[in-house]
Amino acid sequence: MRIAVLGTGMVGRTLGSKLRDLGHDVTIGSRTASDEASTFADAAAGAEVVINATAGAASLEALEAAGADNLTGKLLIDVANPLGTSGGTMTLTVCNTDSLGEQIQRAFPDARVVKTLNTVNADVMVDPSIVPGSYTLFVAGDDADAKRQAVDLLESFGWSRDDVLDLGDITAARGMEAYLLLWLRLFGSAGTAHLNANVIIGK
Amino acid sequence: MRIAVLGTGMVGRTLGSKLRDLGHDVTIGSRTASDEASTFADAAAGAEVVINATAGAASLEALEAAGADNLTGKLLIDVANPLGTSGGTMTLTVCNTDSLGEQIQRAFPDARVVKTLNTVNADVMVDPSIVPGSYTLFVAGDDADAKRQAVDLLESFGWSRDDVLDLGDITAARGMEAYLLLWLRLFGSAGTAHLNANVIIGK
Repeated sequence: MRIAVLGTGMVGRTLGSKLRDLGHDVTIGSRTASDEASTFADAAAGAEVVINATAGAASLEALEAAGADNLTGKLLIDVANPLGTSGGTMTLTVCNTDSLGEQIQRAFPDARVVKTLNTVNADVMVDPSIVPGSYTLFVAGDDADAKRQAVDLLESFGWSRDDVLDLGDITAARGMEAYLLLWLRLFGSAGTAHLNANVIIGK
Repeated sequence: MRIAVLGTGMVGRTLGSKLRDLGHDVTIGSRTASDEASTFADAAAGAEVVINATAGAASLEALEAAGADNLTGKLLIDVANPLGTSGGTMTLTVCNTDSLGEQIQRAFPDARVVKTLNTVNADVMVDPSIVPGSYTLFVAGDDADAKRQAVDLLESFGWSRDDVLDLGDITAARGMEAYLLLWLRLFGSAGTAHLNANVIIGK
């Protein structure tokens, strides 16, 4: 598949590398073209699927640069977290009554946005087996077909379909992103980013 | 132990009933005294341990009524979530850069606040075995002794000491309360409030 990965940070590089290993035709998108990356617009234009792996605070601008026309009708997987800092601690730049996932879907109504993978570290995204045991991965989005397509891709990363939990429409991104505030403390307490949470449902 | 449970809602009643079953001398605190409840102040005055099980939006007012003097030096277990509604959906009344747990600790600096149990439904609080498998419960607070005392109480409820994860000081309440935004979607997706998350740490 032709996949554009927007973002040249650790998450973008890790996803791009994995997708290439899986045989996809991957273009990395960046603000400026280089030997390793196309512009956001060029990457998105040639892609069937676009992955937003830019820093959350810069995502809307990056997608604007990619161009609404280049996103129309496409699966747009948003793995970003709107992290910022306030008073020396990590916080979210948007949360509670809104989310980055929703902001992206509102800004690009013709893209088929699916929020997923944002609750785990980049290494875990592409190899969930590095965290032992069972684990839950969340997906959210307004388009059922887009979510199915995203889950296929997740499965190719090693996520078991049974462990993917569909939380409903894109407003569930509020909870998925708010979880980062807990994740950051789990990270601090565990001393490793290789962690995940397994949701267990009782009767 | 003499324990005051502030709040006569489902959480307060469930905790009060369990604590009585465990042999504690329990007083339920309410805005107004009745056959079943004392005033917040009377309940707190006679207690060694105080549990805030009031609705999050009303907690500060309830604790003010309980009286700072009646909380001084005491373990104050805060199980409340600052839930409100915005545009028809459940949101938090405080989050991201602050939390109810911190607000309470700031308002009552001489109380030893421990945030815990807020990430699970009342039934699960007092009987974690209703959710099968392993599960993680979080504690946060500035006072290590108070956290140890809280964990003893959690153990008597059936929580395994090994499954209690200390997230550090009271600012971790931000993450624990923000998790509610995810929990509400898990609840919606699962169709039951009897759910929990097991945090798994990799290498």
